[in-house]
Amino acid sequence: MAIVLGPNRYGKAETRVVRVTRDGATHHLRDLNVGVSLSGAMDEVHLTGDNAAVLTTDTQKNTVFAFAKKHGVAEIEEFALLLARHFVDSQPTITHARVEIEEYGWDRIPPDGRTDGGADGAPVSLPDGGGRHSFVRNGSEVRTALVHSDGSDGPESVVSGLKNLVVLNSTGSEFHGFIQDEYTTLLPTGDRILATEVAARWRHRGTGSPFGRSYQGARRCLLDAFAGTHSLSLQQTLYAMGRRVLDERGEICEVRLTMPNRHHFLVDLEPFGMDNDNEVYFAADRPYGLIEGAVLTDDASDQPFAWN
Amino acid sequence: MAIVLGPNRYGKAETRVVRVTRDGATHHLRDLNVGVSLSGAMDEVHLTGDNAAVLTTDTQKNTVFAFAKKHGVAEIEEFALLLARHFVDSQPTITHARVEIEEYGWDRIPPDGRTDGGADGAPVSLPDGGGRHSFVRNGSEVRTALVHSDGSDGPESVVSGLKNLVVLNSTGSEFHGFIQDEYTTLLPTGDRILATEVAARWRHRGTGSPFGRSYQGARRCLLDAFAGTHSLSLQQTLYAMGRRVLDERGEICEVRLTMPNRHHFLVDLEPFGMDNDNEVYFAADRPYGLIEGAVLTDDASDQPFAWN
Amino acid sequence: MAIVLGPNRYGKAETRVVRVTRDGATHHLRDLNVGVSLSGAMDEVHLTGDNAAVLTTDTQKNTVFAFAKKHGVAEIEEFALLLARHFVDSQPTITHARVEIEEYGWDRIPPDGRTDGGADGAPVSLPDGGGRHSFVRNGSEVRTALVHSDGSDGPESVVSGLKNLVVLNSTGSEFHGFIQDEYTTLLPTGDRILATEVAARWRHRGTGSPFGRSYQGARRCLLDAFAGTHSLSLQQTLYAMGRRVLDERGEICEVRLTMPNRHHFLVDLEPFGMDNDNEVYFAADRPYGLIEGAVLTDDASDQPFAWN
Amino acid sequence: MAIVLGPNRYGKAETRVVRVTRDGATHHLRDLNVGVSLSGAMDEVHLTGDNAAVLTTDTQKNTVFAFAKKHGVAEIEEFALLLARHFVDSQPTITHARVEIEEYGWDRIPPDGRTDGGADGAPVSLPDGGGRHSFVRNGSEVRTALVHSDGSDGPESVVSGLKNLVVLNSTGSEFHGFIQDEYTTLLPTGDRILATEVAARWRHRGTGSPFGRSYQGARRCLLDAFAGTHSLSLQQTLYAMGRRVLDERGEICEVRLTMPNRHHFLVDLEPFGMDNDNEVYFAADRPYGLIEGAVLTDDASDQPFAWN
Repeated sequence: MAIVLGPNRYGKAETRVVRVTRDGATHHLRDLNVGVSLSGAMDEVHLTGDNAAVLTTDTQKNTVFAFAKKHGVAEIEEFALLLARHFVDSQPTITHARVEIEEYGWDRIPPDGRTDGGADGAPVSLPDGGGRHSFVRNGSEVRTALVHSDGSDGPESVVSGLKNLVVLNSTGSEFHGFIQDEYTTLLPTGDRILATEVAARWRHRGTGSPFGRSYQGARRCLLDAFAGTHSLSLQQTLYAMGRRVLDERGEICEVRLTMPNRHHFLVDLEPFGMDNDNEVYFAADRPYGLIEGAVLTDDASDQPFAWN
Repeated sequence: MAIVLGPNRYGKAETRVVRVTRDGATHHLRDLNVGVSLSGAMDEVHLTGDNAAVLTTDTQKNTVFAFAKKHGVAEIEEFALLLARHFVDSQPTITHARVEIEEYGWDRIPPDGRTDGGADGAPVSLPDGGGRHSFVRNGSEVRTALVHSDGSDGPESVVSGLKNLVVLNSTGSEFHGFIQDEYTTLLPTGDRILATEVAARWRHRGTGSPFGRSYQGARRCLLDAFAGTHSLSLQQTLYAMGRRVLDERGEICEVRLTMPNRHHFLVDLEPFGMDNDNEVYFAADRPYGLIEGAVLTDDASDQPFAWN
Repeated sequence: MAIVLGPNRYGKAETRVVRVTRDGATHHLRDLNVGVSLSGAMDEVHLTGDNAAVLTTDTQKNTVFAFAKKHGVAEIEEFALLLARHFVDSQPTITHARVEIEEYGWDRIPPDGRTDGGADGAPVSLPDGGGRHSFVRNGSEVRTALVHSDGSDGPESVVSGLKNLVVLNSTGSEFHGFIQDEYTTLLPTGDRILATEVAARWRHRGTGSPFGRSYQGARRCLLDAFAGTHSLSLQQTLYAMGRRVLDERGEICEVRLTMPNRHHFLVDLEPFGMDNDNEVYFAADRPYGLIEGAVLTDDASDQPFAWN
Repeated sequence: MAIVLGPNRYGKAETRVVRVTRDGATHHLRDLNVGVSLSGAMDEVHLTGDNAAVLTTDTQKNTVFAFAKKHGVAEIEEFALLLARHFVDSQPTITHARVEIEEYGWDRIPPDGRTDGGADGAPVSLPDGGGRHSFVRNGSEVRTALVHSDGSDGPESVVSGLKNLVVLNSTGSEFHGFIQDEYTTLLPTGDRILATEVAARWRHRGTGSPFGRSYQGARRCLLDAFAGTHSLSLQQTLYAMGRRVLDERGEICEVRLTMPNRHHFLVDLEPFGMDNDNEVYFAADRPYGLIEGAVLTDDASDQPFAWN
């Protein structure tokens, strides 16, 4: 029995780069968190500490900043692909790159203190010709991209997504007909709050999707399907959300969703002589239901590495 | 030398109550985090564990839920006042109540998946007559209220506010002319990013302000002054923001601001043969500058207890 | 092209159960965070919302509490196996269970205010015969277990681990000989701080390991190897840590480690007329190097599902 | 009615400095998080952005690093005093300094992988003469110091403390005899778990206390009193803890405690045909009771500014 090195990767996580582009007096802002992970001929560094094959994580960070300058940031999927290909193409010892990006959204602050745009994930646009350089973060929702590449000539995958999208239906949700066993005490309900914090990722068929429009479209599908589904279970809602994306976005072949059930419990007000006709809820923290599932087209290629 | 009990208070923190109101098929949603702290004749419970003077924190929680049902939630300042007065007025042993509320904002999800409204802090409104019960959390920004009351007939104070409002000017900020001592290495700059996460609180002259409109107005003043101030220091921006609120909102007599300087450092790209004309920044975490200050009208009454 | 349901699972996450056992006046305490995820015949619930195959997450939570009473908590791996087998064995529609447990450690507070034991992960023991029921949390480190089961008669896997184990060597670490490319500015060093927050998991050959002793032994191997390795790279240290566990613990066949490089940068004090002979460091937050790797025996069975 | 600048301060928060001292092959480690806040003649910077009176926060950070080199770190209270006095004494425009320090504890990793010492807050000591430079973070508990100074010749205050000290009594706690009002549903109990996360701060009579021994002594008093008090209310326990510190530590004149009640609710197992004789608890997150109080000697000087 011998001891061997298994799968491994290394890189620089969470490089926080902000890219400003000036279009006259109008500034454009991109706010990214970039993580790079490289793999390749890394036996020696693990076994003996010989770093001859190692492109340092410090250099990876520098590359992120330099590429932000040189190439700008179009869509995060494209920026991730540029970086991933660079590392593999330029270094003989690196055979695979994984680049993960989070993007934080900003709205403009117009002269009247109102904020505009961005709410549906669209790039911030300028309603008039005036000079603008003031921004306000538009929420906790985060756009994500995860790219794997074996180099310009090798296999690649692109997964887009979002997280921290918190949604709630105050009616239109039922839950009943479930298994009764000796530990079951839950009562069925015909009307409950359904709330969740959506983390969704979707895999593209190729690497050339129109990523900006695709993101906006997929996000809208998720919201539409959540709002429009009369729900008998959170699983049903999850499936409807994934299916809607696939129905409407031909460039996407698989959707994976993680949806915690943010339980809202009806408070028992009867001891105080009050009824509670779905009016007052306690929003609980833990424990919580957690629903995870994938929806895909039956012709989707198999790319299990794409998601990790 | 004797040992004595000093200032003390107790209560139930972070009761998460969600209140749904149905207007036909259209639902309205209020999402609160309520903290209660009571003070009074509490010597015995500390010295001997005799709880005869103690209204339990469990009862405080129940009261929050029951009041959400009975009174609904108009503005959070009013809901806080209702609760605070109730505890003092109803219990002889309770002489002072402090109620603190955070409110989380939700936008509607209309049928087309877009979100609307709310971005300027306005209550979510319904653009048409259709039934609506689907919502999306509108960000990390939080509206706050802090109320102190000695009961309906006693002194009271109301402080409104917001937190987690993250703003950024990508130009229009300079920093120079500061003290040079033996530990100074910072270079002056004529153009930098100025970014901060605003935590602002403002004290009302009385307890009858139009709290909804007041909040929206004060929030807009903060954004306007941040965006509109050509800044020579974050202190100057802070003062301008506080002053703007006082200039425009006569019901407010004091503003307190806490503004961390979210440093964005220009990345040195010269080693890579590139200039960096305010294009690529590293967004740093720690350490950070922290600017705190109060702006008030000279006729403001003295209520130091109002803020804690 | 049809749309189909892909891999899915659902369950109750983060059930926080505390189990007290009384041995006369001496109490024993187990503090767990339990997550259950079930899979099986779940097409209908996703496609139509029919819950006939669904054991509710509420029932799963109840089962965790009931099993804590009925069976007590020996080692968390055993408690996880008990739960996982129960769900699959008792429900025809459930074919696979995943149970994940975090355990938080507590030391006793003896009469003299000192704390004892537990620091090496050993169960808290009582140094004398006195009655004891006072405890103090012994840190941020967390013991973990992850179990997969297809039922008592099916394939099973057990992964043990720990996380939040923060370690630092203040010397004995070098870094040089790495690739120089056009974006490389890092200077080689012959003496640096090496610090990391270890997240380690290890897979058992079977399901009958002596889990308590195994955990203590594996943890000690990780600490020994970290402290005892003169490091030329964090990868080398990672491999040495995994290898040590496999060398000493025959019941374990694979170790996976995630080790962020908690950079400590030497502060340049030269502008202040001071040298800095590895004395004053700035502990940085982001970005950070992130090293991930597996070490395994070449006769280890293949259980890719064991880790997720 | 004029608008005026109120109380203000500014500084550098969270400078993370690690100081290594080499005693031959044995290294000593201090790990601090330092926050500086300065006040003084700051009208101009707020009103016009003139920075002539401003010692930049970047310089404050540099000073922290330089002082760590020049003076080393004895006790954090002393290091804070050194810094605070420096800023006021060296800058005519600075009239007041506030310095706040958190210290994170590390234990040594001896050759056998065991960890030693530090658990009662004592400085890490070396059991034998061997060279040592490997450390493990000893938990989530944090030692704190808060110093205010008007300069070497002016008024000063020193507050020491700790936070994140999580303690639990599994019996010896009752709760009954409380007020019954119309919203009271809580039942009295004669035996419950009492758990809390202690944040304690204590004010010294002067600035020359033996801070190391004082800290260890005060910490032990808190643990002893928590463990040794048969509790009828958390308020009673809080008072006993503060009182114990004052009884035993003559250098301390006031203790302030913040103690959230980490509720552990007995799970109702009756539906499953089981009793629950204080064996299985659900550890809840929110809402939670929050008890805050001060205990002081009646000859304590009045220093309200000391705590903020």
